[in-house]
Amino acid sequence: MTDAASIDRQASSAPLGLICGGGSFPFAVARSAADAGREVVLFPVRGYADPEEVERFGAPVEWIDLGKIGQAVTALRRHGVRQVVIVGYVFRPHLTAIRFDWMTVRLLPRILRALRGGDDHLLSRVASFFEEQGFELLGAHQVAPDILVPAGTLGRVMMGPSALRDARYGLDLVRALGPFDVGQGVVVAERHVQAVEAAEGTDWMLERCRELRERGRIKLPPRTGVLVKAPKPGQDLRIDLPSIGVRTIELAAEAGLAGVAVEAGGVIAVDVEAMVREADRRGLFLVGLAR
Amino acid sequence: MTDAASIDRQASSAPLGLICGGGSFPFAVARSAADAGREVVLFPVRGYADPEEVERFGAPVEWIDLGKIGQAVTALRRHGVRQVVIVGYVFRPHLTAIRFDWMTVRLLPRILRALRGGDDHLLSRVASFFEEQGFELLGAHQVAPDILVPAGTLGRVMMGPSALRDARYGLDLVRALGPFDVGQGVVVAERHVQAVEAAEGTDWMLERCRELRERGRIKLPPRTGVLVKAPKPGQDLRIDLPSIGVRTIELAAEAGLAGVAVEAGGVIAVDVEAMVREADRRGLFLVGLAR
Repeated sequence: MTDAASIDRQASSAPLGLICGGGSFPFAVARSAADAGREVVLFPVRGYADPEEVERFGAPVEWIDLGKIGQAVTALRRHGVRQVVIVGYVFRPHLTAIRFDWMTVRLLPRILRALRGGDDHLLSRVASFFEEQGFELLGAHQVAPDILVPAGTLGRVMMGPSALRDARYGLDLVRALGPFDVGQGVVVAERHVQAVEAAEGTDWMLERCRELRERGRIKLPPRTGVLVKAPKPGQDLRIDLPSIGVRTIELAAEAGLAGVAVEAGGVIAVDVEAMVREADRRGLFLVGLAR
Repeated sequence: MTDAASIDRQASSAPLGLICGGGSFPFAVARSAADAGREVVLFPVRGYADPEEVERFGAPVEWIDLGKIGQAVTALRRHGVRQVVIVGYVFRPHLTAIRFDWMTVRLLPRILRALRGGDDHLLSRVASFFEEQGFELLGAHQVAPDILVPAGTLGRVMMGPSALRDARYGLDLVRALGPFDVGQGVVVAERHVQAVEAAEGTDWMLERCRELRERGRIKLPPRTGVLVKAPKPGQDLRIDLPSIGVRTIELAAEAGLAGVAVEAGGVIAVDVEAMVREADRRGLFLVGLAR
């Protein structure tokens, strides 16, 4: 992986190209990089990035299409971009729904081979593809290191020994799930797995945990259990970092959990201060666990 | 494990005690055992077993309470029961919500130790406890072997090679999850894990898969993906057999899946004929996969 310190000086003086999927993370990353003095160009993906947020950000913009890799490469070159960050979600689209350009068509055999291996393989192919085209692919955490959740207790609420055991159990589970390209998030309460995140995402999983308690399907005292998030083992952090936000804290509170534990340095948070305020207010812990 | 053939003749001529949790499986098992000429006594668990179904069944009945193991033992002995089957769900209750009798209180340290190890450990303690008390604990599949899903294609629809790969992938995932006492059910489509079942149960997981497609979160052609169910590795089949029913087929169809694959001999189905009819009608495969 490219270390922030080893980034070529010339490349880093050129504009940073930010390929933006859905959600607010792309803009948080862009803001952080811009605040650090970096010139930023946004390449929002049509159908995923929010046009209003793109416009509000106020940087140069070139919209790109999912199936048009040649278009993206041309657009990046036109703006003199050397370093590229890909950030934000792009729900797995079905190939028949995408219109391809010529470069994509030529790449399709590789893409299809990669698809058989799961998203991780696909994304690492994307990374090596951009590198073949002369770009350097960086992780969001490399251009905006302040978005990574650090180690330690972030708010006022401390994690008890039982919650710590649950959190460690959850981390072990995420690691066991690694080979299956699934489960950056799990909910564990008193050493029982309440929920495993797959395609539904963290928010939806937390809503399910709330319902499981409301319907009496899980009987636990309030403030029991931990949401655990961590990158899958071997995951390329340049491409797919798990993330948490204020909404995560809100949903964890509503699900009756005691707090949120993430792998320190492996999970991004847009606005840690707001998260800590929310966690303190609701009596939840927010902890970065050293590996 | 006790083999059906080795069951003590004297014990098997005594009435069979059926401890009934929630759902319709207890009655299907009781019916199957009764049809085979066995005298059956029902011991429904208050708050879990359906009183109407209990009454409709028409066998001798003694209601028992979750926290009262002494009461259950006395009731079983009163009816001359030597062999016991536990079947039907009992959602994990919180200990503070249960009223204990004296025998249970004496057992609490063992129960609490077992709870730390997950449900599997708890249930195997329950099994060894009944054995210490002189009962033989049998699996539902031992008194009603016709409820196990056999190997092979059960309906008219055949499983394609892609679905078979998904099913094998799902079985591998269930095995990897084994140590965490979670995930008898998973949904895999084109080598991607859509959902992993934890505390919510199979039906709820399938409803989520339907919603994932309706909301466009997963983009796949209709009739793609497989529901895979299998016992966790090392699971004591006498206590916790995964199950499927007509409703499983309906929900799998509504979730856009191509079919249902279960580990042959490791999953129970109350009414296989009705399931096959439903699967045929909806164009889904229903397959028992040999290990």
